[in-house]
Amino acid sequence: MLNERNVRLGQVRSAIRELFEYGKKRKAEIGEENVYDFSLGNPSVPAPEEVKRALIDIIENSDPVALHGYTSAQGDYGVRDSIAKGLNARYSLSLDADCLYMTCGAAASVCISLNALINNGDEVITFAPFFPEYRVFAENAGGKLVALPCGEDFKPNVSALKGALNGRTKAVIINSPNNPSGVVYGEGVLREIANTLNEYCAASGGEIYLISDEPYRELTYAGESPSAMSFYARTLMCYSYSKSLSLPGERIGYIAVNPAMENREKVYAAVCGAGRALGYVCAPSLFQKLVARVGDMTADFSVYERNRDMLYEGLKNLGFEVIKPEGAFYLFVKSPEPSAEKFALRAREQEILIVPSDSFGVERYARISYCVSTQTIERSMPAFARLAESYKLR
Amino acid sequence: MLNERNVRLGQVRSAIRELFEYGKKRKAEIGEENVYDFSLGNPSVPAPEEVKRALIDIIENSDPVALHGYTSAQGDYGVRDSIAKGLNARYSLSLDADCLYMTCGAAASVCISLNALINNGDEVITFAPFFPEYRVFAENAGGKLVALPCGEDFKPNVSALKGALNGRTKAVIINSPNNPSGVVYGEGVLREIANTLNEYCAASGGEIYLISDEPYRELTYAGESPSAMSFYARTLMCYSYSKSLSLPGERIGYIAVNPAMENREKVYAAVCGAGRALGYVCAPSLFQKLVARVGDMTADFSVYERNRDMLYEGLKNLGFEVIKPEGAFYLFVKSPEPSAEKFALRAREQEILIVPSDSFGVERYARISYCVSTQTIERSMPAFARLAESYKLR
Repeated sequence: MLNERNVRLGQVRSAIRELFEYGKKRKAEIGEENVYDFSLGNPSVPAPEEVKRALIDIIENSDPVALHGYTSAQGDYGVRDSIAKGLNARYSLSLDADCLYMTCGAAASVCISLNALINNGDEVITFAPFFPEYRVFAENAGGKLVALPCGEDFKPNVSALKGALNGRTKAVIINSPNNPSGVVYGEGVLREIANTLNEYCAASGGEIYLISDEPYRELTYAGESPSAMSFYARTLMCYSYSKSLSLPGERIGYIAVNPAMENREKVYAAVCGAGRALGYVCAPSLFQKLVARVGDMTADFSVYERNRDMLYEGLKNLGFEVIKPEGAFYLFVKSPEPSAEKFALRAREQEILIVPSDSFGVERYARISYCVSTQTIERSMPAFARLAESYKLR
Repeated sequence: MLNERNVRLGQVRSAIRELFEYGKKRKAEIGEENVYDFSLGNPSVPAPEEVKRALIDIIENSDPVALHGYTSAQGDYGVRDSIAKGLNARYSLSLDADCLYMTCGAAASVCISLNALINNGDEVITFAPFFPEYRVFAENAGGKLVALPCGEDFKPNVSALKGALNGRTKAVIINSPNNPSGVVYGEGVLREIANTLNEYCAASGGEIYLISDEPYRELTYAGESPSAMSFYARTLMCYSYSKSLSLPGERIGYIAVNPAMENREKVYAAVCGAGRALGYVCAPSLFQKLVARVGDMTADFSVYERNRDMLYEGLKNLGFEVIKPEGAFYLFVKSPEPSAEKFALRAREQEILIVPSDSFGVERYARISYCVSTQTIERSMPAFARLAESYKLR
């Protein structure tokens, strides 16, 4: 018998992947321009020109043995040092190189953090709507994911958090700007979460960690997204340059362990050990050196903002109920009928591909990934109009 | 409580890393040229010039969104197709793209393979001497590593294998050319292992997989190293370009699932699922494209051969008992005293850094990693002579 859980994970595609594969087939049948594919969260803008120039410069002018050699398992010291300094300046933190652990992207960051913390049977809390792979990662680490219902406006439901904390709770994962809702958790809600955890830990003597998954951190439309580490000592910040630099395939990110936590060295050791046990040796060396040079830049996000405005206004005018995205490149639209699945299928009749919200732990919504060309948004509007009409929305 | 196993893994460096860190400190004290550091298996020759040219060409002439974007989780189709064709031509196999799964290097390949196969309590057999991280990877997957004693000339002990197979045996891991012994497993011994497994499985109705860890495959000094997949249907080939192209920091390799196994699709699904559960999203995209272009090349291995010859002859002439390496860049030298630890410490008095064999599951040897400059070998010879003298070897 093979490991049947992993067989299933390999056989059953996620709802998102399933839809993406359908889209590929459909595009081959009726032409790419006739399918409005909003299924995947794959950045559609190019990496900044500086990425190209820096990569070529590094490759042309470095000693290849040093450039392509192993870095230490936690990442090149100079790279970690420069990232720590950048974060300190931005969020008033006190990180140093030894708080940083370079990873192969955000999925690796979250996975390694969970494996560092979890013992068999521990619970990890998250707030709906949430990225479905959290469940896969938590269960593989021997834990159990507890998804709390939405709060108002898709913000975390902090009173539900209060009720859910118990002796088995090891960590809370938050994701802001949020995939799939596009909601940004503001300073107020982050402070509420921190207070709730601090009060519970003080009363119970427990230690609960906050895993803050922030790959969309720079992608906001109304001011900077605050970082949870500023508010809660036991925070592990999980980051990836996939979105900020439009480099999702290159797998480069990090975990930052807050030096404000009293057992910081032990937590950092657990991170290093978990990375080792999962087969991560070091993060890709060339891209470590790249982010030390241009990691504070971002790709041109103006396309995403234009897309958001066009889609939000367009759908609202057609009579759809939509959540205005404050960040990331996702828009949550309410299904006019109780079943989000049926809504997504009816959208598909108009060649619109959107993901029903059920796999994100929320009913009656669909996720529209607008990391597409603005033309695709424009051309999809008549199809959305027909969809609205089929529901007699106005 | 954190995950204490991972805390320990993060706190306790491997014996190799420990020695490497000592070496760094010592070099700072007495000068780099006065320490003969044979601790690490870090390629010392540059990547071929073609790697540099291909990287720059790909970066300059590709659409950045496609170049740096996610590939499918199992890797870019074209890349997998070209690797499958290359392997078929070389080893007379019948692989296709859907047998290949691109990984972040050999550690990831082995880790993912183990997680695909192992259920809690399963046993994984390997032959001493073996790469110590196999134990970490197998245990993290819920399995138990069973290390069999050496056979003659550090070849696998096939009769011990016969005795060790049982209802819990899920896999056998082999590593040829071998780290740490430099021994290459020839066609004869691979056939013997295959026959033994086939006989046991036929009699018991069991399914035992062979994980063939082959990162040193191209690094041989007396003809090509055969590949286990040619001899045993249930083989998972684990590969990395770290050594062949001198790119260890870039984390690029693959798993190939033998299409000759009857449940090939299910095993491949388990590999995909295990990768997903461990947080691997795709192998670094730029380096996938690179290996599709230049993956059949190798760095200039002539330095390693020169080093091997100089070290082998030199140590033999000094009276040391040495195993002649047939591949990789390691040489196994026998300790003149029963304790390999004490031998390594006495070598350290001469500023020679070598790894006692105990952590590889073998007593009374030490590993010399000769992926260093030829000058280092030359300059170390008087120190080795003093070491030999201290043991009155002649």
